[in-house]
Amino acid sequence: MFNKLVIFGVGLIGGSVALALKQGTHTPLIVGVGRSAGNLQEALSLGLIDRAETDIAHAMQDADMVLIATPVAQTPVILRAIKPYLTSSTVITDAGSTKSDVMVYAQAELGVMAHQFVGGHPIAGAEKSGPGAALTDLYVGKNIILTPNDHTLPEAVQKVTALWQRCGGLVSTMRPEAHDAVFAAVSHLPHLLAFALVDDLARRDNAEQLFKFAASGFRDFTRIAGSHPEMWRDIALANKTALLDELTVYQRALSDMAALLEASDAQGLYQLFANASQTRTDWAKSKS
Amino acid sequence: MFNKLVIFGVGLIGGSVALALKQGTHTPLIVGVGRSAGNLQEALSLGLIDRAETDIAHAMQDADMVLIATPVAQTPVILRAIKPYLTSSTVITDAGSTKSDVMVYAQAELGVMAHQFVGGHPIAGAEKSGPGAALTDLYVGKNIILTPNDHTLPEAVQKVTALWQRCGGLVSTMRPEAHDAVFAAVSHLPHLLAFALVDDLARRDNAEQLFKFAASGFRDFTRIAGSHPEMWRDIALANKTALLDELTVYQRALSDMAALLEASDAQGLYQLFANASQTRTDWAKSKS
Repeated sequence: MFNKLVIFGVGLIGGSVALALKQGTHTPLIVGVGRSAGNLQEALSLGLIDRAETDIAHAMQDADMVLIATPVAQTPVILRAIKPYLTSSTVITDAGSTKSDVMVYAQAELGVMAHQFVGGHPIAGAEKSGPGAALTDLYVGKNIILTPNDHTLPEAVQKVTALWQRCGGLVSTMRPEAHDAVFAAVSHLPHLLAFALVDDLARRDNAEQLFKFAASGFRDFTRIAGSHPEMWRDIALANKTALLDELTVYQRALSDMAALLEASDAQGLYQLFANASQTRTDWAKSKS
Repeated sequence: MFNKLVIFGVGLIGGSVALALKQGTHTPLIVGVGRSAGNLQEALSLGLIDRAETDIAHAMQDADMVLIATPVAQTPVILRAIKPYLTSSTVITDAGSTKSDVMVYAQAELGVMAHQFVGGHPIAGAEKSGPGAALTDLYVGKNIILTPNDHTLPEAVQKVTALWQRCGGLVSTMRPEAHDAVFAAVSHLPHLLAFALVDDLARRDNAEQLFKFAASGFRDFTRIAGSHPEMWRDIALANKTALLDELTVYQRALSDMAALLEASDAQGLYQLFANASQTRTDWAKSKS
């Protein structure tokens, strides 16, 4: 296992890992590193971390596990900063929403030590952010995807698997490109669809009237349009190729549906809606 | 006011009107008419209605208000069936999701008596359906839209307004076509977008993997894809013109967004996402 965990970014994601580990036995020493002194101090006073550090050399001393849980744009900067302090047994992982880009960063920044890096993506989140939003059970029963490549050390994958299992997560592994293709379809595309709808309606002359009469269906459909614009800009750009593919496929599906409507094809529309409705209902049952 | 209300369709919508009226004073006699003897009997035993009728002539005797709360395809059939029993003071209204089509039905079926018909659309609903799902407060604080045209009698509009106000609704009036344009944008389009996404994903070879990793954002975004396929087929066909216009506008918005992504226009994507996020957040606050 590991004795000292350094977490870069002690917000909802990193803080919840810390909280979960502190529930178990053999809790490692947990050191938080962050850009915001306020967040670090809050994480310390909430007991999420044992020590708050701004000096990376000091934070990394004897660290055998590093978790990067910052906005993904910071990942290469952090990898570069920690490289001088890595030993051959340090394992590094992250929690970003895209994985091909992160695997490239690791190769570029860590060189031969890139095989000690295991990309990770916990499929869990909450409305709120920051250390105060951290939850002991955020990862319980949630899917955690690790994305080793051909060069990743099996021992490193084992250690990161153990980390997430201690948080209650259900760990599976995928190729980085396969991960990005799956999440382009089930997460990144829906976010872009919701952003596009709300942005378009907001620009209309009768926007006030439209939003006045928007109700509960609209509320659920557009909840993800309230997501953090900077984070989603970075995700969209990081997963650009897969996301453009998904947009093309979806535009074709919309055109096909519009053609059914144009032709007043009642049977065709019914089949499409019924297939979607049945699938969605079955899926919701399987998840509950 | 009115002394005898005949409700066609005693499910969630009609049943909740009945329940709400029964909370107040001057409760009219409420007669339920329906195709399903089971539903009618349940509405009677739950106390939603005072009498259950299958004979329209008997049901309509001395009725001064008729509410049609059935699937909208039945509306013209019901209008034709009740016409012989209407007096010059009977007011007829409905609760369908589309209004231009219903106003045309009223004109076609009722002739000169069409001016006693007031189209209505309560913007309220719930996951469940049937008389057992009826709620006393379903309409409290909810928007109710009435769609009179140039021929509708002002007294009829006043009476239907009073009906919904007694249920706690916030009544406003719109032209039928304006109603359908607004709801094409904020309700019908989102439903079709969600149906199209789920149907498309369900048809893929890796559908099982995709749905395995779909999480809470997907859950909310696609909730409306679990809606009733027959009802939504009818809504889509009834509001075909406005909905096709909305699909065209949305496809253009998606193409513009894809162009920003294709060009890696970080600033353009940020502005689009930020406008959507701010609008959605402000809207949610205004509604809570």
